[in-house]
Amino acid sequence: MTLVQFLDHAAVLVFALTGALVASRAQLDIVGFIFIACLTAVGGGTVRDVILNRDAVFWVTEPTFIALASAAAVLVFFTAHLLESRYRALLWLDACALAVAVPAGVGVAIGMGQPWPIVLIMGVVTGCLGGLMRDVVCNEVPLVLKQGELYVTCAFAGAGAALVVLTLTDEPRFALLACACVVFALRAGSLAFGWSLPVYRSRPPRH
Amino acid sequence: MTLVQFLDHAAVLVFALTGALVASRAQLDIVGFIFIACLTAVGGGTVRDVILNRDAVFWVTEPTFIALASAAAVLVFFTAHLLESRYRALLWLDACALAVAVPAGVGVAIGMGQPWPIVLIMGVVTGCLGGLMRDVVCNEVPLVLKQGELYVTCAFAGAGAALVVLTLTDEPRFALLACACVVFALRAGSLAFGWSLPVYRSRPPRH
Amino acid sequence: MTLVQFLDHAAVLVFALTGALVASRAQLDIVGFIFIACLTAVGGGTVRDVILNRDAVFWVTEPTFIALASAAAVLVFFTAHLLESRYRALLWLDACALAVAVPAGVGVAIGMGQPWPIVLIMGVVTGCLGGLMRDVVCNEVPLVLKQGELYVTCAFAGAGAALVVLTLTDEPRFALLACACVVFALRAGSLAFGWSLPVYRSRPPRH
Repeated sequence: MTLVQFLDHAAVLVFALTGALVASRAQLDIVGFIFIACLTAVGGGTVRDVILNRDAVFWVTEPTFIALASAAAVLVFFTAHLLESRYRALLWLDACALAVAVPAGVGVAIGMGQPWPIVLIMGVVTGCLGGLMRDVVCNEVPLVLKQGELYVTCAFAGAGAALVVLTLTDEPRFALLACACVVFALRAGSLAFGWSLPVYRSRPPRH
Repeated sequence: MTLVQFLDHAAVLVFALTGALVASRAQLDIVGFIFIACLTAVGGGTVRDVILNRDAVFWVTEPTFIALASAAAVLVFFTAHLLESRYRALLWLDACALAVAVPAGVGVAIGMGQPWPIVLIMGVVTGCLGGLMRDVVCNEVPLVLKQGELYVTCAFAGAGAALVVLTLTDEPRFALLACACVVFALRAGSLAFGWSLPVYRSRPPRH
Repeated sequence: MTLVQFLDHAAVLVFALTGALVASRAQLDIVGFIFIACLTAVGGGTVRDVILNRDAVFWVTEPTFIALASAAAVLVFFTAHLLESRYRALLWLDACALAVAVPAGVGVAIGMGQPWPIVLIMGVVTGCLGGLMRDVVCNEVPLVLKQGELYVTCAFAGAGAALVVLTLTDEPRFALLACACVVFALRAGSLAFGWSLPVYRSRPPRH
């Protein structure tokens, strides 16, 4: 199993856990858990593969991805009541998922020899769109829209870090590792310490 | 006309009727009716065809699908006021649409020689995503998220029934027929008698 | 640069401005502005290219589109507070974007030799879906659903006008120009003078 394949599997697993947690907040039945978990788990990668016009979407040629996501959904259905705060677990699992999905997207684009702007975008697309579909369908406030939090920024910075490391070392594995670290560090810093960028305000502050 | 083509046409027609009924609840004009009807009618099949990387999306090569959906929208625009309960009509038409769209998706995947997990998923995708797009765009509570109702479960069970019958008889037509019957029976039972699966609750009941 | 390429660039630029204005209403940070601007700018054209199964999505082969949309987002982030009414600016910029995106979609479909129903649909898809994604993600009431306003109708009429002019003159450039004029005239008339089509009402008026 290559590093990109490992990242793809890890992203599917952890995003499926977040999807199932959102399903638990919507009080769905077990098939609803599986549906939302699969949508979240493969949504971003599917859009990536369709846009890049790959020969096949990654989970169509290897349905173990779907089995993995479904197993995660069943696990959450029977154990989520043991969590103290499902929303807190959701936020941190989503951070982990972002930190593996962004390098997975970056790795696929690098492997196809795409130019750097497309590598950057595919990192963001793979990382952010699955969670965005989950939130839009389940009527949660999308995490990408939370004010005063870093989210798309983490994906963007991580993909950028991968490109820098790749230029310096020409070693894709280091690049993907650096990407994962940057994404997780920024997102964890935002969740734990409130790191953020200035947001738009309709009037600038007086001096 | 093959059975799969018939099912595809029927699914487009009936989903278009549901889309137009949702448009009537949003008080749109006649072009809005046509827009929402077409989105609902071809949404699920389009995602299926794009994911399976078929040579062409089904309605691009045969635009009569769009004509059919538009005609359904115009019909509803002028006659929906005759209905006693538009929401009740919407629910039952949606059940019929689900019962033809799931076997349509299953039939396409079988015809392409896809493995069984993909057949299962394409049944669910073709059946559920058009209605999901309709509800997300029109800001209705998605039917797939209704608590204490079977919806995705019906699609899932129907596609599973098709696979079982196909293994036993090796006759795709019987498989698709069984699929349609299972989907409609489960969905109708849920609407009429309240059949449902246990939903997730944050704390398990005390013993 | 051909006329279709010019229209594609103009549509990306102006839709990006509308996306950034919606981001300003949601008080996002600068990366959020870029994310929503890019989603709005390339959303419709991406769906068009995927459905038509073009060799590559338009912005993948030419990433300047993304640079253009990002620049527009940065510009709005620093200057939107100078606007008197951001919502009014949003509506009128969206009208301009619609008036260039519809002929861009029509032009691509004509260039591929698609039959007229597909040309019509691709005009509507390219014009309306980017803004629809923007509104769904940012939880605004989608412009396509506004009661008593023309929106999809403008796209539809413009694409129809293009087909008529193309039949009469066999000159694609005139057709695209006519399309842009019809779209903008109808949408501007709707915004300025309240032009609209009769909407559906649950009971017809008594006589």
